[in-house]
Amino acid sequence: MLPKPQIVNLPVYQPGKPIEAVKRELGLTEVVKLASNENPYGCSPRVRAAIEAELANLSIYPDGSAVELTEELAGYLGVNQDQIIFGCGSDEIIALIARAFFLPGDETVMADQTFSVYKSNADIEGAVSIEVPLRDGTHDLDAMLDAVTDRTKAVWICNPNNPTGTIVSEAELTAFLDRIPGQVLVVLDEAYAEFVTDPSYANGIRLLDKYPNLIVLRTFSKIFGLASLRIGYGVGQPAVIKLINQVREPFNTSRIGQAAARASIADHDFVADCREKNAKGIKYLNGEFERLNLTYFPAHGNFIMVDVQAPAQEMFEELLKLGVIVRAGFSKYPNSIRVTVGSESQNKKFISALEQALQQRKARV
Amino acid sequence: MLPKPQIVNLPVYQPGKPIEAVKRELGLTEVVKLASNENPYGCSPRVRAAIEAELANLSIYPDGSAVELTEELAGYLGVNQDQIIFGCGSDEIIALIARAFFLPGDETVMADQTFSVYKSNADIEGAVSIEVPLRDGTHDLDAMLDAVTDRTKAVWICNPNNPTGTIVSEAELTAFLDRIPGQVLVVLDEAYAEFVTDPSYANGIRLLDKYPNLIVLRTFSKIFGLASLRIGYGVGQPAVIKLINQVREPFNTSRIGQAAARASIADHDFVADCREKNAKGIKYLNGEFERLNLTYFPAHGNFIMVDVQAPAQEMFEELLKLGVIVRAGFSKYPNSIRVTVGSESQNKKFISALEQALQQRKARV
Repeated sequence: MLPKPQIVNLPVYQPGKPIEAVKRELGLTEVVKLASNENPYGCSPRVRAAIEAELANLSIYPDGSAVELTEELAGYLGVNQDQIIFGCGSDEIIALIARAFFLPGDETVMADQTFSVYKSNADIEGAVSIEVPLRDGTHDLDAMLDAVTDRTKAVWICNPNNPTGTIVSEAELTAFLDRIPGQVLVVLDEAYAEFVTDPSYANGIRLLDKYPNLIVLRTFSKIFGLASLRIGYGVGQPAVIKLINQVREPFNTSRIGQAAARASIADHDFVADCREKNAKGIKYLNGEFERLNLTYFPAHGNFIMVDVQAPAQEMFEELLKLGVIVRAGFSKYPNSIRVTVGSESQNKKFISALEQALQQRKARV
Repeated sequence: MLPKPQIVNLPVYQPGKPIEAVKRELGLTEVVKLASNENPYGCSPRVRAAIEAELANLSIYPDGSAVELTEELAGYLGVNQDQIIFGCGSDEIIALIARAFFLPGDETVMADQTFSVYKSNADIEGAVSIEVPLRDGTHDLDAMLDAVTDRTKAVWICNPNNPTGTIVSEAELTAFLDRIPGQVLVVLDEAYAEFVTDPSYANGIRLLDKYPNLIVLRTFSKIFGLASLRIGYGVGQPAVIKLINQVREPFNTSRIGQAAARASIADHDFVADCREKNAKGIKYLNGEFERLNLTYFPAHGNFIMVDVQAPAQEMFEELLKLGVIVRAGFSKYPNSIRVTVGSESQNKKFISALEQALQQRKARV
């Protein structure tokens, strides 16, 4: 067998331990998972009925072009239907962009600590990832612009940035877009957009008319609480969307996923409620971090990166023993963990575990 | 924007008209869709409860490596767990194989009338598809072997072949596998395997130990009746599966899809019942085609390709007006349609419409 040489040494996804296995091995009765930025409030109560209505159609292929969902979403976003493409999560849209645009040797610019799927897909295509250091945990758009060359096919901006949670403002973003060459695709990943309450934040979709080289990624996995059903989407000018559609498999989203997403869009109250509770959670966690003398990045999504003043992987293990799963392993922030903003009780359990872990560590040192 | 040059002129998937729109436009009260080889008997009755049990977990990401489903399927197939990879339908496995193996200029060998997704994915990667003519609607394995060169990365064998429905026998297949160079990947697409009753048919999975360059594709979309949920899989030696996993997005199947597939595997009676009813349907349709003096290819899946002695696209339109949707548009068989074997009543409705359309045509000529 003769695979593409660039894929031979790529890492294979290593699954996390199921919660049940963690409980059994550590003798815990309750485990709180704050590792994957899932919505602690579930999804809209309207979703259940929408799924039930599809159970008679399980043997029938989904609508490959998701006509009804596209209509609904186009209305919600205020764009035309030919500006939208759906994927199996926004992960798939990222993969499709790489597959449609990148040839071996092409360059693509991204932050040095951001969503890992950008780089993994560039690697698969043999493209070169130019990783530009974050500044104070935030995209350094000037430096990213400086990194653009004649070989740059795309720039990735994750806003809010996963894992740091920081944002670039609308002013910063438009200054960047005004200056970047028009043939460079700018991928603005707004997976956490609906959580943001900061008025300086740009709604990328409003910028599409002015910047035809922009594509915005969103998802139903985060505030809409449908991570299990795998529906993400891209919004851009029709010419860009068409190119990505040219490398899309027709039946890449499920019938149930489409139905659930349609039901979710209409439930504005659910989204507003989640945003409000999340903002309260951020405030609470920030306050507790300050009480514990820990520094953190300003959080705009539903997660916070906090410096635990110790190797993050060790703190991850300590917290796991105390029944809380967080995320560690960020190469540029080896002493920081990323914690999802959970429900009030989950946040309290996390802070209690964190405080205990910090004290144990202090006692040992 | 600078897409890969090879994708710029690829066709974009054009959705078929929804059944409701067809009814409205043509003033029909009932439309029978025999166009997508879906299971007319739905899916196992066990699936509903499995899905219900997942409705509390919609906001939680699926298990990216589908551990429980993999365990269940490995037991069912009699293979090891590291021999299986799941995809968003077997479509996605095809795309992943192309993405893992093909570089621009590579060659890949396939039949000249087979499942179109092989060629479309080769096109995306800039690989050259060598299309070998079918012989009597059947894969010509000798000619395919002759088409293999030093640049051949993979050979695709669709067995039963979509759209002709024919099979190659185990003897023919192993003679081919014995002779093909070991570095060429052989992709044996057995999407319709569970429908086959012919004893000469090979179970490709039994051949994997002898031929490490073989990978078998299967799906839950056909006899298992879960097309809407998008779960297909590949089975091969661990080294091949690992390479494909290296280009897979972790969360490429849904939680509900995994649960439904698990419930389906265990229901052997449902599968056996569908196979039996399908065989009866083939017998009935073949008899009717003979009565109408139409020739057809021997069908081994849940569809039949029949020569309607007229341009297939015209016959498609005639049948549509009579409330039956079939598939036309096969470039090598311009006078043939592909019809899914439906339920007894669907098959009768199809034959009645076909007979009427043939008579109308005869009257006009």
